[in-house]
Amino acid sequence: MHEFDLIKRYFQKPAAGSVKIGVGDDAAVLAVPPGYELVVTTDTMVSGVHFFADVSPATLGHKALAVNLSDLAAMGAQPAWFTLALTLPEAEPEWVDAFAQGLFLLADSSGITLVGGDTTQGPLSVTITAMGLVPQGQALTRGGAQTGDLVFFSGAIGDAAQALADLQKWGQTPTRLRARLECPTPRLALGQALRGLATACIDVSDGLVQDLGHILAASGRGAKINLSPFLSGDDYELLFTAPEHSLADVIAAAVASDCVVTPIGHIQAEAGLHLIDAQGREYQPEKPGFQHFSEP
Amino acid sequence: MHEFDLIKRYFQKPAAGSVKIGVGDDAAVLAVPPGYELVVTTDTMVSGVHFFADVSPATLGHKALAVNLSDLAAMGAQPAWFTLALTLPEAEPEWVDAFAQGLFLLADSSGITLVGGDTTQGPLSVTITAMGLVPQGQALTRGGAQTGDLVFFSGAIGDAAQALADLQKWGQTPTRLRARLECPTPRLALGQALRGLATACIDVSDGLVQDLGHILAASGRGAKINLSPFLSGDDYELLFTAPEHSLADVIAAAVASDCVVTPIGHIQAEAGLHLIDAQGREYQPEKPGFQHFSEP
Repeated sequence: MHEFDLIKRYFQKPAAGSVKIGVGDDAAVLAVPPGYELVVTTDTMVSGVHFFADVSPATLGHKALAVNLSDLAAMGAQPAWFTLALTLPEAEPEWVDAFAQGLFLLADSSGITLVGGDTTQGPLSVTITAMGLVPQGQALTRGGAQTGDLVFFSGAIGDAAQALADLQKWGQTPTRLRARLECPTPRLALGQALRGLATACIDVSDGLVQDLGHILAASGRGAKINLSPFLSGDDYELLFTAPEHSLADVIAAAVASDCVVTPIGHIQAEAGLHLIDAQGREYQPEKPGFQHFSEP
Repeated sequence: MHEFDLIKRYFQKPAAGSVKIGVGDDAAVLAVPPGYELVVTTDTMVSGVHFFADVSPATLGHKALAVNLSDLAAMGAQPAWFTLALTLPEAEPEWVDAFAQGLFLLADSSGITLVGGDTTQGPLSVTITAMGLVPQGQALTRGGAQTGDLVFFSGAIGDAAQALADLQKWGQTPTRLRARLECPTPRLALGQALRGLATACIDVSDGLVQDLGHILAASGRGAKINLSPFLSGDDYELLFTAPEHSLADVIAAAVASDCVVTPIGHIQAEAGLHLIDAQGREYQPEKPGFQHFSEP
């Protein structure tokens, strides 16, 4: 199949609303409404590194977009537009059709529009750049955690890591866990509801310990976390901090966002992360978070 | 080398000006000035497909950004921000250092700022998403060519295709041609100078015949082009149309942009592209433009 046919058949949609020029010109032209700032993130998924080579294309389409939407959620942004760079060993219409279905099911339900892309031949990988909007000055960053703040986690910790461990060990995992690994739900509504409430926010992709470490480093703080030893990674849940006096508002925001949040500890003035188990004993995390490049 | 160290060492720059939050959070936060629209494009370069596996990393850094800047130029946009998704077989500091030098030399001279990215392990490829700004409603598209308009081409046609043909046949090509293939100069100043003058514009990446075909299809027109048989592809020059009465203004815009432009033909009402050689005879193009996926 011809490259332009592939683009036209699966990815070209008419321009409308804020999309002044969409897929099909040299670049897209987009209208950012007054009073808003643009939020931009990009993530690549490579076959054999971020997904199994035999992953279903619909699942891959979902996840490649979901991990980017999760970053927008962590900034408190509402999704607006995205570009897709798709590298494929060969142009198989059935594969691209299924990929596009998984991709657009999530895109349409999240209110994000494909505005451009590039299809190339090569080893299978997907790079998505997602753009969102946030009212001026209201983006949630990693750097605002204050001493005494509660640390919260959305959803359940460790499902995705458990599923991955199961699959690597036994080649199977319960359907619910597999879905949590392969089809994570970006916490878009929660992220937006946390604007003005959360003092810092990040999405958990590399693992809770590592990602909390980013909040602590950016905020110049430490934390004490009460959790029994756990696996984490690829969760795409939000990890955030908020003052104790906002607890009721945070719970209300979570309920309104159809999402569970759990307070798991406190921010401390002294640097360092202390993990405390159910018996009150401090322990070390079992393994560091996911690293694309391991140390020599 | 640790992924976060790699990012910090080569790619993290302090946020300033329109970059409210840059590299180092879940996403970048960017301020689009009032009265401007956002222009977005993305291009992937894959080892063995878009460049030779032994390409110098500095050259690759330059070209990966240049092809995206060329798309911004073709829209009449001024460069603003970009994201970089870099997939590498292994984390070699020397390689990344040279790549970053080639990349930032062009980025700095073009006034575009890196605001985010993703480094992953896998077969070598680079995806850049470039963002630019254009005054509201003034983007140059492919769709506005009018019957009687002159067709112009910037720079020289065919240098890059000649260099590629030389390299594939003999393994060498003159330095000037090699530079035209590996280090194309995006026509940013010309693109912006053509706002309000050009009726349609595209950058030539797939070859003159194919890219002119896009203008003709989008504009619902045909063209007669006076050129002796030529190779084209990977030129990253601008191909554009403008009314005959604007000829002097177009030449002035080109001179002000330090760039040569050549009128090569006319837009016609009837569909179809007619290529006429120096003897006035019509001929067929030697080969179609570059296709990532060839037909079975």
